[in-house]
Amino acid sequence: MTTAIEHLISQMTLEEKAGLCSGLDFWHTKGIERLGIPSLMMTDGPHGLRKQQGSADHLGLHNSVPATCFPSAAGLASSWNRELIGRVGVALGQECQAEDVAVLLGPGANIKRSPLNGRNFEYFSEDPYLSSEMAAFHIQGVQSQGVGTSLKHFAANNQEHRRMSTNAVIDERTLREIYLASFEGAVLKSQPWSVMCSYNRVNGEYASESETLLTRILRDEWGFEGVVVSDWGAVNECVLALQAGLELEMPSSGGIGDAKIIAAVNSGELSMETLDLAVERMLSFIFKYTENRKEQATFSAAEHHRLAREVARESMVLLRNEDGILPLSRESRLAIIGEFARKPRYQGGGSSHVNPTQLDDAFAEIKGYCGADKLLYAKGYELEHDEINEALLQEARDIAAKVDTAVLFLGLPDRYESEGYDRSHLSLPESHKALIAAVAEVQCNIVVILSNGSPVEMPWIGKTKGILEGYLGGQAFGGAVADLLFGEVSPSGKLAETFPLKLSDNPSFLNFPGEGDLVEYKEGVFVGYRYYDKKEIEPLFPFGFGLSYTQFEYSGLKLSKHSILDTESVQVRVTVKNTGTRAGKEIVQLYVSDVDSSVIRPLQELKGFGKVELQPGEAQEIAFELDKRSFAYYNTSIGDWHVESGLFRISIGASSRDIRLSAQLEVESTTPLTVTFNRNTTVGDLLDNPFTAEKAKGYGSIFGLEGAMDDNPEMYLAMMKYMPLRALIGFGGGKYTEADLARDLRELNALVAGE
Amino acid sequence: MTTAIEHLISQMTLEEKAGLCSGLDFWHTKGIERLGIPSLMMTDGPHGLRKQQGSADHLGLHNSVPATCFPSAAGLASSWNRELIGRVGVALGQECQAEDVAVLLGPGANIKRSPLNGRNFEYFSEDPYLSSEMAAFHIQGVQSQGVGTSLKHFAANNQEHRRMSTNAVIDERTLREIYLASFEGAVLKSQPWSVMCSYNRVNGEYASESETLLTRILRDEWGFEGVVVSDWGAVNECVLALQAGLELEMPSSGGIGDAKIIAAVNSGELSMETLDLAVERMLSFIFKYTENRKEQATFSAAEHHRLAREVARESMVLLRNEDGILPLSRESRLAIIGEFARKPRYQGGGSSHVNPTQLDDAFAEIKGYCGADKLLYAKGYELEHDEINEALLQEARDIAAKVDTAVLFLGLPDRYESEGYDRSHLSLPESHKALIAAVAEVQCNIVVILSNGSPVEMPWIGKTKGILEGYLGGQAFGGAVADLLFGEVSPSGKLAETFPLKLSDNPSFLNFPGEGDLVEYKEGVFVGYRYYDKKEIEPLFPFGFGLSYTQFEYSGLKLSKHSILDTESVQVRVTVKNTGTRAGKEIVQLYVSDVDSSVIRPLQELKGFGKVELQPGEAQEIAFELDKRSFAYYNTSIGDWHVESGLFRISIGASSRDIRLSAQLEVESTTPLTVTFNRNTTVGDLLDNPFTAEKAKGYGSIFGLEGAMDDNPEMYLAMMKYMPLRALIGFGGGKYTEADLARDLRELNALVAGE
Repeated sequence: MTTAIEHLISQMTLEEKAGLCSGLDFWHTKGIERLGIPSLMMTDGPHGLRKQQGSADHLGLHNSVPATCFPSAAGLASSWNRELIGRVGVALGQECQAEDVAVLLGPGANIKRSPLNGRNFEYFSEDPYLSSEMAAFHIQGVQSQGVGTSLKHFAANNQEHRRMSTNAVIDERTLREIYLASFEGAVLKSQPWSVMCSYNRVNGEYASESETLLTRILRDEWGFEGVVVSDWGAVNECVLALQAGLELEMPSSGGIGDAKIIAAVNSGELSMETLDLAVERMLSFIFKYTENRKEQATFSAAEHHRLAREVARESMVLLRNEDGILPLSRESRLAIIGEFARKPRYQGGGSSHVNPTQLDDAFAEIKGYCGADKLLYAKGYELEHDEINEALLQEARDIAAKVDTAVLFLGLPDRYESEGYDRSHLSLPESHKALIAAVAEVQCNIVVILSNGSPVEMPWIGKTKGILEGYLGGQAFGGAVADLLFGEVSPSGKLAETFPLKLSDNPSFLNFPGEGDLVEYKEGVFVGYRYYDKKEIEPLFPFGFGLSYTQFEYSGLKLSKHSILDTESVQVRVTVKNTGTRAGKEIVQLYVSDVDSSVIRPLQELKGFGKVELQPGEAQEIAFELDKRSFAYYNTSIGDWHVESGLFRISIGASSRDIRLSAQLEVESTTPLTVTFNRNTTVGDLLDNPFTAEKAKGYGSIFGLEGAMDDNPEMYLAMMKYMPLRALIGFGGGKYTEADLARDLRELNALVAGE
Repeated sequence: MTTAIEHLISQMTLEEKAGLCSGLDFWHTKGIERLGIPSLMMTDGPHGLRKQQGSADHLGLHNSVPATCFPSAAGLASSWNRELIGRVGVALGQECQAEDVAVLLGPGANIKRSPLNGRNFEYFSEDPYLSSEMAAFHIQGVQSQGVGTSLKHFAANNQEHRRMSTNAVIDERTLREIYLASFEGAVLKSQPWSVMCSYNRVNGEYASESETLLTRILRDEWGFEGVVVSDWGAVNECVLALQAGLELEMPSSGGIGDAKIIAAVNSGELSMETLDLAVERMLSFIFKYTENRKEQATFSAAEHHRLAREVARESMVLLRNEDGILPLSRESRLAIIGEFARKPRYQGGGSSHVNPTQLDDAFAEIKGYCGADKLLYAKGYELEHDEINEALLQEARDIAAKVDTAVLFLGLPDRYESEGYDRSHLSLPESHKALIAAVAEVQCNIVVILSNGSPVEMPWIGKTKGILEGYLGGQAFGGAVADLLFGEVSPSGKLAETFPLKLSDNPSFLNFPGEGDLVEYKEGVFVGYRYYDKKEIEPLFPFGFGLSYTQFEYSGLKLSKHSILDTESVQVRVTVKNTGTRAGKEIVQLYVSDVDSSVIRPLQELKGFGKVELQPGEAQEIAFELDKRSFAYYNTSIGDWHVESGLFRISIGASSRDIRLSAQLEVESTTPLTVTFNRNTTVGDLLDNPFTAEKAKGYGSIFGLEGAMDDNPEMYLAMMKYMPLRALIGFGGGKYTEADLARDLRELNALVAGE
């Protein structure tokens, strides 16, 4: 604690201290004028500023000042481009400074457990490593401008359904390896100024009241130094929250929270030390902004729009390109069909809803490439509802029949996905599906541009030749689409989530969104590709998948060592070459597999990735560094990450299902797990242990299974293996006693302890 | 307690009492000569007697007296024929009386959680209703002869892997609805003389020490009156077991158990009342046999063999019959290929291994139908190992090329599945698969006869025209196969389990056989078809599937009522007509679906079945009765079965995926679930409750979401719905206080309580 802050606290009244722990109004912290403590503004994010000047709300309803609307997180993550996301963060930070906003409420690092989550568009990935990397660089960018972030929603807020009351029941290993890991990496790498706790309960406790989450894990283990702010309305009992490690309740509680805290201090329920610690953290947080405040800050809306276009291009994923239908020739006659071409769906609903500085029109941008004379347009469907309009379909057929290629702008309308509620299915609107079918009657060259925040199923895929997943591409969506369609740049996004063939393939399907206020994460660590891989389920498009207009060749996989201790790290290098005829960027993915594990583990886990830009013929080496965590699982009995000694496979892939190169590595644990044998230890476990194997071999004769070895050796060995030591007494028929067992256990435990 | 038993107990010493609680040797209870208490013999079953006279073992290793080997349970259940299984039970009881065996150790009612369980052949089904019905009629048959049964292995012994030490962690609803239900029905219907507890732990407790299982559920809830015997070696601590409700430890503990019990009584750890209760139950059990003993009993081995053949015919399932390749004409030239045709695999390994009274030779039986001159034979593969023998393949090709049809006898050799260990994959041996491929090179008319105790995958199915699943068909397997092949009778078995396309499709796949000594049943109630249905996974063959040589038409579905209270029952009738040209039996299945449930439930559950024999053109009405249990799920909060009021669908099917008729029924609960509202009750829950809806409508304005209704009504409604009452305070901005909330909760709870 700085002396300045210490001094300030010493001057504060109990009322002033209590007041700092909740908001002044919807968006501001309380200031204390007499002590020179300013009131700060926070605004929604994370892919654009939503600074409200009039009526405040948390749902994106009322107006906000114009700000650049970048692609939402689902798209950002598809870029797999750390540096680019960092630049988006910088731009967001500049806009915050220009608007005197102290904290941008984001990024969101929740894991995409189900494609139905209505807020998936605001989250990065189904994979915690990718998600945490994206979050970390977003945070670094924003905070480099002296503006805070609020990493959210901590933790396990993986659905909107009953989000304020539901209890997410998650086993500890899954929580650590999947749901917390996504936050952990971002905290460790980028130290966000604040973390926002989620609405829901986690294993019975409100996130806002979980000392385990907010103090023991977030601060003690991960070293988080900022403040914990509640999601708007997430505090259940503010005194319990304060004690658990939450400093700031938002929005204002109308004085109710202040009064409760004061009463709790006065009654002795809450210690002054706890309150002072919260106040100290709040003051550090507040002054971090004032110290970094750039009074004269402005930003160039035009420059940020150009960045939004660049980012949108890298965020889109080319999913299908039969017969090389893309890129389009500038000479071809085109039918642009679907109202999304004129009125794009470029962002999601809810708190992240931004008032854009400008908005591209895809039709106009396309016209810019090929000219007006070769271009036709039809509306195709009505945005306001799902009903099929036959006249619009006929109009679409009519123009589609006259051109070389039909480009259909389709996707999910606003009402389909939003903060606040989940989707119930993965289908496009009936009117959009009917449009594909209608156009396909007259035109076999169909390219679909999708606008949606989360996967859709594609039973109609066979009717198309090209599919470009645009996600919610931000205000420059239209320009970026045109750039990609005509090959101005090659698509370079890859999926940060699995697209399932059908909803029921999803791992959470049987337990999403739960029963009443209980949602059990019974799929465990098998989230996303971890599930599809292990269950051998063919996805529509796998995690990490995305096409390019050029081709890449992988070679020269090299490991710096082939055997390491788990305290050491290993460098992995691989060379990627652009063997096509166009410039392009390639996302190279590194997966690690535990070849033979005694623990139930995924077949492979993403532990590294890199993105390189290559000219035709150009090659470049990419390097990755793997450390203990790359090989570890979370061992709940020791409460720590653990590497099981043995062989690991390092796979380099262009996607999770397109592994190009692999190599093996021996990792040796430096943390032996202690074992203590007891009367129910099996003979097999003794036989498997080098210290006790010899002694255990003697037990065969006691069981009287001699005959079995010849007759059915498989059964004999299995019976022996699974026999607990106590059975020596029962099956020994008096030959072996409790005293023998007690003596043997002493001996065996001494053997394994190396005594 | 009878006075005779009371008198006996009063005369017994502590040593004698303690002695009765464990075996004399491997197969006998202790007798007390001075009191006229005899020693009883128990032997392994359940589909044949394994009475050992020499060396004793629990693994089917040493010799036993000849006894009729009926099809094992996997086959018996495929008959879906209660009466027939009852007749098998009668025959087994007769053989027991003839051999002075007091108790046949079976049947096994464990659920087939995974097809890998090495002991699945001894179990009936993946469905608890079917399994419990089969077990009940088996028990009734045996016990009608004055011989006891031992319903096993209670409970959750669903794998052989680490069966003596593993801990099966199962949520209560799943335990009740799936794993216990299979035992419950059998106990309620047939009151077995004994129940055998399993080796494993269930939710942390050894089954042998679980008072919950052995006393509270088995006796207090289900009214079980017999004794609980341990699986051989399943007792961990005999005093704890006795206190939990286990009366008989087997086999003999060599006096160690006796001494522990005596010491425990002397130290006061074990009360004399507890011991006396166990002794009383043991004496009732012992005298039940002596009172029913038929000294002169004999049985006709020939008659039982005929029964074994009849049962085997009904146990086999015709899985495929392209181009009506079956039945075979007696005039056709046949190549019989595969050593299983001469050396059948007709039973499984382990404790159920029977020394048969005679053994059919399928090749000889086939010859009996079509004569020797049109018949060729080739060995095809070697039984002892899996290696492919090219010479044998060539021989098979040579004869297959010369005939009209090749009949291949394939399956799993003994070493593939057995008590004691699990399978690791679902494949046939490489040599068997190579044989199919080889024969298919020269012959397109291929019929495969399978001998296996549990599903196999069939990537080779396209090379065949006919597949007859023979399971482990008992000693008359060969004759029964011949009867079915030539259409002497039509196949009438249907699958009591799902055949998956591949192992990873199985619901337990991610968590079987667990990690170390922990196996978590994370698939919950979604076992077998309950999973394949909900997850929309196409199985190789669905639950309840089986072909016939004739066809059946379903009509006239009638319900006795269309609206009932859950205390009432409803009669369901349907007419089945044989519309083909051959006599045959049809298994008609009734499934119940909760049309709209607030609880996560399977799409449908088997709640009735019947089997009818029909001549060509003949029709018959089948009746089912459904009661509360048919519609209920186990509600853990009330600790009882509960029906949620609403619509249910009654489906009548020829299989779980071939529903022919359906009707709807309204069921009204007579057990309202009490609700108590609290500060975290959501506004939506109040809106959904008829008593509180009106009051809850007033909350919208407090949240200040007025604007949202026009702009994004979906989000507005969702936000309102999920908002907890406490949020009225936070979002009310002072308009609503803790006092208001307290007052409202009082009012709301009074409204719903009808006050």
